[in-house]
Amino acid sequence: MIPDTICALATPPGGAIAIIRVSGPNAVFVTDSIFSKPIRDAEGYSLHFGQIMDMDGKELDEVLVSVFRAPHSYTGEDSTEISCHGSSYIVQNLLESLIWNGARQAEPGEYTMRAFMNGKLDLSQAEAVADLISSSTQATHQMAMRQMRGKFSKELADLQGQLLHLTSLLELELDFNDQDVEFANRQQLSELMDKVEQHISQLTESFQMGNAIKNGIPVAIIGAPNVGKSTLLNALVGEERAIVSNIQGTTRDLIEDTTQISGITFRFIDTAGIRKTQSKLERMGIERSIQAAEKAKIILLLAEHNKPFPEIQFREDQIVLQVINKCDLSLPSSSYLFHRQPTGRLFHISAATGAGMDLLRKALVQESALPVNLDSSHSVVTNVRHYDALKQSLEALRRAKQAFADQMPTDLVAEDLRQCLHHLGEIIGTEISSEDILRNIFSHFCVGK
Amino acid sequence: MIPDTICALATPPGGAIAIIRVSGPNAVFVTDSIFSKPIRDAEGYSLHFGQIMDMDGKELDEVLVSVFRAPHSYTGEDSTEISCHGSSYIVQNLLESLIWNGARQAEPGEYTMRAFMNGKLDLSQAEAVADLISSSTQATHQMAMRQMRGKFSKELADLQGQLLHLTSLLELELDFNDQDVEFANRQQLSELMDKVEQHISQLTESFQMGNAIKNGIPVAIIGAPNVGKSTLLNALVGEERAIVSNIQGTTRDLIEDTTQISGITFRFIDTAGIRKTQSKLERMGIERSIQAAEKAKIILLLAEHNKPFPEIQFREDQIVLQVINKCDLSLPSSSYLFHRQPTGRLFHISAATGAGMDLLRKALVQESALPVNLDSSHSVVTNVRHYDALKQSLEALRRAKQAFADQMPTDLVAEDLRQCLHHLGEIIGTEISSEDILRNIFSHFCVGK
Repeated sequence: MIPDTICALATPPGGAIAIIRVSGPNAVFVTDSIFSKPIRDAEGYSLHFGQIMDMDGKELDEVLVSVFRAPHSYTGEDSTEISCHGSSYIVQNLLESLIWNGARQAEPGEYTMRAFMNGKLDLSQAEAVADLISSSTQATHQMAMRQMRGKFSKELADLQGQLLHLTSLLELELDFNDQDVEFANRQQLSELMDKVEQHISQLTESFQMGNAIKNGIPVAIIGAPNVGKSTLLNALVGEERAIVSNIQGTTRDLIEDTTQISGITFRFIDTAGIRKTQSKLERMGIERSIQAAEKAKIILLLAEHNKPFPEIQFREDQIVLQVINKCDLSLPSSSYLFHRQPTGRLFHISAATGAGMDLLRKALVQESALPVNLDSSHSVVTNVRHYDALKQSLEALRRAKQAFADQMPTDLVAEDLRQCLHHLGEIIGTEISSEDILRNIFSHFCVGK
Repeated sequence: MIPDTICALATPPGGAIAIIRVSGPNAVFVTDSIFSKPIRDAEGYSLHFGQIMDMDGKELDEVLVSVFRAPHSYTGEDSTEISCHGSSYIVQNLLESLIWNGARQAEPGEYTMRAFMNGKLDLSQAEAVADLISSSTQATHQMAMRQMRGKFSKELADLQGQLLHLTSLLELELDFNDQDVEFANRQQLSELMDKVEQHISQLTESFQMGNAIKNGIPVAIIGAPNVGKSTLLNALVGEERAIVSNIQGTTRDLIEDTTQISGITFRFIDTAGIRKTQSKLERMGIERSIQAAEKAKIILLLAEHNKPFPEIQFREDQIVLQVINKCDLSLPSSSYLFHRQPTGRLFHISAATGAGMDLLRKALVQESALPVNLDSSHSVVTNVRHYDALKQSLEALRRAKQAFADQMPTDLVAEDLRQCLHHLGEIIGTEISSEDILRNIFSHFCVGK
């Protein structure tokens, strides 16, 4: 299929400048058709100032046009970038003019999909572009950059190399099986499989952290009614709320909010107050609170001075911070300053006045135990699709190990190893042939990227 | 004063791509400091792909850098444009990195102000840039383009030329006054003054239209309570509301909304129902409705079938369209279809079902009497600052005319003409020396422009 020429606005509406991208075999020709200067034969990486025309040939704006030539462009195709004034009228008419002259409105992520199709990026690198654009903290930025620059892909390629080596050793044995020759040392083969399993398992486990870094560490605020849970939520997210709302696609409901503390993203969940009640409706709310608590990594268990904490069972891997609120009312200011944090896990605060909140915030950062600096040698998996593929490849590898241990026929072991390889290949895209799957992956991108 | 080097984000937050502009004597040097490729000696209009670093020298993103050399840039200074991924983390750290290396965050409109200071644009052209960015209709776009391309400036320069000619003729007479020589033919001078007055007066009068095009033609919806005024407002603005909310800075309150019909912007004002009442509070609301009606160019006077229209006095220059609403309830559909628009100014509609609305919309466009295509020879004034300056220059010219007619001493007439010239000069900026005034003018721009 010969690709057509696509165009899209790559910047958000509004603002001083807008960038319109054109890519495809006719990109330069189409741009030339509506531009005051001849650029049909312009070289790649050249920049041109002139007037751009609307469909009726009327002057629409003064613009800068950058010309890129295949394969030295983002998509790997001939392409142009038109930098115009950010007026809605200009942008709309410029796009119409490009479409009138033979281009087509691009679909979400179509530029990056073309970059992938043309071998400029593998699939995990392409997906990292979307992560990079939505990154708002150092940690998410570092993970996305690492992935975009191909470090994760290299790690996967190493694993694939080891698995291929394993498979070929096994298959060599298979070929000469009737001659009763054992080419591969069983002990060596077993150790090699263990090593690969450990690495894939590490990557799979890193997803919990990667997901927490990307979407925020879930923190549930649990307590009896009227102990100040919502006030605490507001105190925790209050001053950063505006920044959060800048991030596109942050899903929220009335009782959830995301904020950053020391560069770590937390997702605070405000819950219904927990108490014994006859009301069916209220019990349903309490049930939901307990469900939210189950999914949280950190629990802020809230109570008032001299009142008991709610009695809930938590998992062992959950971190529970006991917090006594409204200390401005219950304690004389001198004694409550003294009483702050008498144990490592009991905090005295006033969410209303802000007293004691700094220590609580520090504890949250400490307990989240995320490496702020992610310059480790192993990648952190942040993408659900990658996580699913890794899990499947791990399962296949474990089947292979079991079959090998059970001294099953070598071709059965080799088949499981090929399955394992196949799922790793899905991540970087070498094993994805269906355009529908690709379109689905890229549909989560924004238009113009 | 030697200008420093400024930097700013020129695109809105969010989106696939962000553009950061750097301008000033050290723009290329500062960009070079954080870029992976040497561009210190790069030529103007060159384009470079590479990595950009944060303050700690860590790789922040893959970017495209455009280099421009004075005077061939927007500001007339050395400058660069960095096209990076639109992540809030990247943008913030890139700006910090530029500032760390010697740039300063630009103030709103500072790029265009520098373009003006360096003689790339005159003041009215610079102001047109802001209008161009905020233009959302063909009419506002055409007016802004015309002004930005210097057509309004040329018209003003012509007027200044004529006034200078007048003044010099008068001053020549002044010099030889004691010799009783009359160089200038009084009749000719008078005709010249009339001609200039007529032109300035035309420009001043065009402001009403320019302002209506820019901010919308005010249309008040007036009627008794419960005749369906708010339903009519919703029917008129409903389907276009989303587009309107895209425009930044559109000021609205609960009872005003702006929409476009056939490319013309209307500002509809919903008012309190008018009736005789003893309630003081209600009378205050009715008073406000009448005030709104006074400011409107078009009045939609609303009533139900067989009910009287409210009795209000309108000005002669106001257009009143009588509208009978709820026709779906009061008239059998056949007869009401037949009765539509029995006179030129009476409309039968149902705001609830939408029946008859098309004819009403057409009438609004017709009555607004705005030339959709503004390719006339004279400019339309859209800027309040220009309008004020034109009014003052017109007053000065009229004083000169009066003094001339009264055969006052020639130097008095010449002084008034110089005043007239001065105010025209304010528009294009030749007569503005105070930086405070300039800063005030440019402070209405967005940052990055």
